[in-house]
Amino acid sequence: MNELHLSKKTYHFDAPLRLQSGASIDQYNLVVETYGQLNANASNAVLICHALNASHHVAGIDLDNSNELGWWDNMVGPGKPVDTNHFFVIGVNNLGSCFGSTGPMSINPQTNEPYGARFPVLTVEDWVNAQARLADQMGIRKFAAVMGGSLGGMQAMSWATQYPERVAHCVVIASTPKLSAQNIAFNEVARNAILSDPDFYGGDYYKHGVVPKRGLRLARMVGHITYLSDDDMAEKFGRDLQRLAGAPDEYRFSFDVEFAVESYLRHQGDKFSGYFDANTYLLITRALDYFDPAKRYQGDLSQALANVRAKFLVISFSTDWRFSPDRSREIVQALLNNKTDVSYAEIDAPHGHDAFLLDDERYHRLVRAYFATMAEAKCN
Amino acid sequence: MNELHLSKKTYHFDAPLRLQSGASIDQYNLVVETYGQLNANASNAVLICHALNASHHVAGIDLDNSNELGWWDNMVGPGKPVDTNHFFVIGVNNLGSCFGSTGPMSINPQTNEPYGARFPVLTVEDWVNAQARLADQMGIRKFAAVMGGSLGGMQAMSWATQYPERVAHCVVIASTPKLSAQNIAFNEVARNAILSDPDFYGGDYYKHGVVPKRGLRLARMVGHITYLSDDDMAEKFGRDLQRLAGAPDEYRFSFDVEFAVESYLRHQGDKFSGYFDANTYLLITRALDYFDPAKRYQGDLSQALANVRAKFLVISFSTDWRFSPDRSREIVQALLNNKTDVSYAEIDAPHGHDAFLLDDERYHRLVRAYFATMAEAKCN
Repeated sequence: MNELHLSKKTYHFDAPLRLQSGASIDQYNLVVETYGQLNANASNAVLICHALNASHHVAGIDLDNSNELGWWDNMVGPGKPVDTNHFFVIGVNNLGSCFGSTGPMSINPQTNEPYGARFPVLTVEDWVNAQARLADQMGIRKFAAVMGGSLGGMQAMSWATQYPERVAHCVVIASTPKLSAQNIAFNEVARNAILSDPDFYGGDYYKHGVVPKRGLRLARMVGHITYLSDDDMAEKFGRDLQRLAGAPDEYRFSFDVEFAVESYLRHQGDKFSGYFDANTYLLITRALDYFDPAKRYQGDLSQALANVRAKFLVISFSTDWRFSPDRSREIVQALLNNKTDVSYAEIDAPHGHDAFLLDDERYHRLVRAYFATMAEAKCN
Repeated sequence: MNELHLSKKTYHFDAPLRLQSGASIDQYNLVVETYGQLNANASNAVLICHALNASHHVAGIDLDNSNELGWWDNMVGPGKPVDTNHFFVIGVNNLGSCFGSTGPMSINPQTNEPYGARFPVLTVEDWVNAQARLADQMGIRKFAAVMGGSLGGMQAMSWATQYPERVAHCVVIASTPKLSAQNIAFNEVARNAILSDPDFYGGDYYKHGVVPKRGLRLARMVGHITYLSDDDMAEKFGRDLQRLAGAPDEYRFSFDVEFAVESYLRHQGDKFSGYFDANTYLLITRALDYFDPAKRYQGDLSQALANVRAKFLVISFSTDWRFSPDRSREIVQALLNNKTDVSYAEIDAPHGHDAFLLDDERYHRLVRAYFATMAEAKCN
């Protein structure tokens, strides 16, 4: 089959979801896309967890917007590394996000106004609990694999510890067992850009008919610097001046766009501030900061991963300075300490953290082989 | 002598200074501090060039503010590495800065209003030209040394090419021959934080009685991340929570200060936004972006440094990821290509870019030895 079997559905949950903070959400929706067919014994489901700014729309053309190719379309689809001819792949927009699932923009049934600042702070563990309920509704007892990059990898990891019986394989890409001080610092700058934007109104900008665009724009600009490697930026932009073809290669002595890299960052910032919700940005960066499964074990990651039953595939990228290979090796070492079955690959790729979204041949060959072996094992 | 002989003076310049942009400044002041005594033949003068946020106040206690120790007080003074018992050290606040020299806050004599956005964009070369006029007024034909860290190192380098006969020794610390795309990107985020602050008023905030504090605060927060090494941040803050002693080591699930590193960044940002001028921040980061002496030689740094007559001391720090040792090695290689006398040291120090301001023992021993040799050579 060459055609992608895509379907989209909103799931509603009525029972309150108790959160790690102690707060709870009484009812909520999760928007879900699926690709491929669930087999008779529901054993071929793969859950894809998204990172900061992505959504349920993992693969194919968005049913509501034909311009929107899924964010991991190079990875998921018929004949792709995660082959939807074999696997039933699920993309879910997380709670608190802004692409249709219940989040700060949604109407709080208790007040009939958008949640805004009253939307509770969430953790990776909370997302996994919400996803587990989704799996229940979908009739999936155990995932063939839970998979994600960056923050998505944290969710995959957390699945393996929160629901060890429900995950056969855990695929953790370009991730980390916890943020470093520098990682948190970058998030803090991004959050402060939003929090200090006069259009933020303490998170209740919806009722003022504005959006804290300046803050979102800056947050995204900072983010982008950390997604690319230094070398990649040098390769892509260097010190090239932003000029019309034929214009002289001279400085213009102003604070407007002068270098190509400035134009790129401003463009990324503008685009992002046009579609992403600022409260969601705060929530998701905070979930990143808080993720630290070893915290309750006095920092011992091996203990935190001791109950894992899944087999692991861990992948990192050589030029990723946001979550460097060292961070992935910490995960691998903790798994090995527990004698967990783990494959690890460090891909020599120039594209920094963003590499997990790109179609590097060695990276995709590896994922393809891993899933092919899973598919075969299931058939035999 | 153990006492620092400090004097402070404002120099006035009447002749227009033609700038690299083509604009010019008709008249301007430069605030200067000196330490030690100029000898009879004016051969013992050392010019210290400052980086982004520093000033003329290099050493000792500020005459106007007894709390303000000079920014390089550990380096300059009686018995210090740059020993003011031998050398006459000059600190000068650059044109466009905000500590007394003419800058955007100053009154434009043509309009009787602060320059604001009409202050011309400056380059490192412009600063050096202004400093050369200062040297003329002070009766200094040739400096024993011109010295600086980071942006200050760029000025020292530029002195050696713009006025090769006037520099005996050039000391370039934690610097680079040009910014990388990533360096420019960080500056661009900082500038955009200021430019998009509603209190910026296109640079003319003075007349509105406000200061773009939000923007300055964010700019400084971003800056601080790049001044410290990842390891240094991990060492200083790790994932420690910001808590009163005895308070539980638990998350509070909010966007307020949660981690110690957040508290540090906010504090630095707040402090900075209370004393630094936003227009100056724009000007100085732009001067950093523009510095590229090899540009007019099709990128050939050896050609750009071909006319140098000074001897060089170049120092870098192992964990400086803003201007890494590789960038210093480019300078050294270009100098060697010209058979210039150059000493190079890469100091294994944990403190990132900030290391040039700290008193690492090996670093200071090296500078001390270099200046001691100069002092001896002069005596014999």
